[in-house]
Amino acid sequence: MNNKNSVNFQEKFSKFSEHWSPKVIAEMNYYQFRLVKIQGQFVWHSHAETDDVFIVIDGEMSIELRDSKVDLKIGEMFVVPKGVEHRPTAVNECRILLIEPKGTVNTGDAGGELTAKWFFYCRQTAAA
Amino acid sequence: MNNKNSVNFQEKFSKFSEHWSPKVIAEMNYYQFRLVKIQGQFVWHSHAETDDVFIVIDGEMSIELRDSKVDLKIGEMFVVPKGVEHRPTAVNECRILLIEPKGTVNTGDAGGELTAKWFFYCRQTAAA
Repeated sequence: MNNKNSVNFQEKFSKFSEHWSPKVIAEMNYYQFRLVKIQGQFVWHSHAETDDVFIVIDGEMSIELRDSKVDLKIGEMFVVPKGVEHRPTAVNECRILLIEPKGTVNTGDAGGELTAKWFFYCRQTAAA
Repeated sequence: MNNKNSVNFQEKFSKFSEHWSPKVIAEMNYYQFRLVKIQGQFVWHSHAETDDVFIVIDGEMSIELRDSKVDLKIGEMFVVPKGVEHRPTAVNECRILLIEPKGTVNTGDAGGELTAKWFFYCRQTAAA
């Protein structure tokens, strides 16, 4: 009996170092599992079409909402409801797992320089 | 600024002890995050309508497929493709996170005594 491979989060994290650049590591139906290293402050944004899931694999982070704040550490998750403005922040590097529908843009409605480059690539490919 | 609560996996696990009985701890769109403690051998089953995601939070487990086997430990995940027969097994207690569409039955097509009771409850409620 041969062995199929599992996905090991730390092994995948060891393959990249940039921040705010999600990497797709698995898919389930129309959803993607994306690992991302974050540090510093992201942009305020929201996703009009989908809830947004954060699971902390290593480290600590916060998710600011307009009227509150969620602190997350290893082994914790939070679901930002669809349409709710939020801003992820991490003082030190934090490693997280995101679960989002395919095509979800990391910066949501905000755009800007932190938008993951693969998204533009996908858009161009889809438009070609 | 008040603080919203994150979901802490270990805190949720501390609230139940039974095996093979998934507990819904969060929802994202039409999907549910379910924590489950497993030990021993589950039944062979498949899910005709959905891929099936296993993330190990603590411990070790295996997922037998008809032609192969996947070993999973803490910090690892595996996606069983839609329609593929599988049988989860854990020698010692293992704590896992499942992500599945609402209404997904833990025993899939197999049924039997390991089918989570809340599913029957939901069915009865829906039929009432």
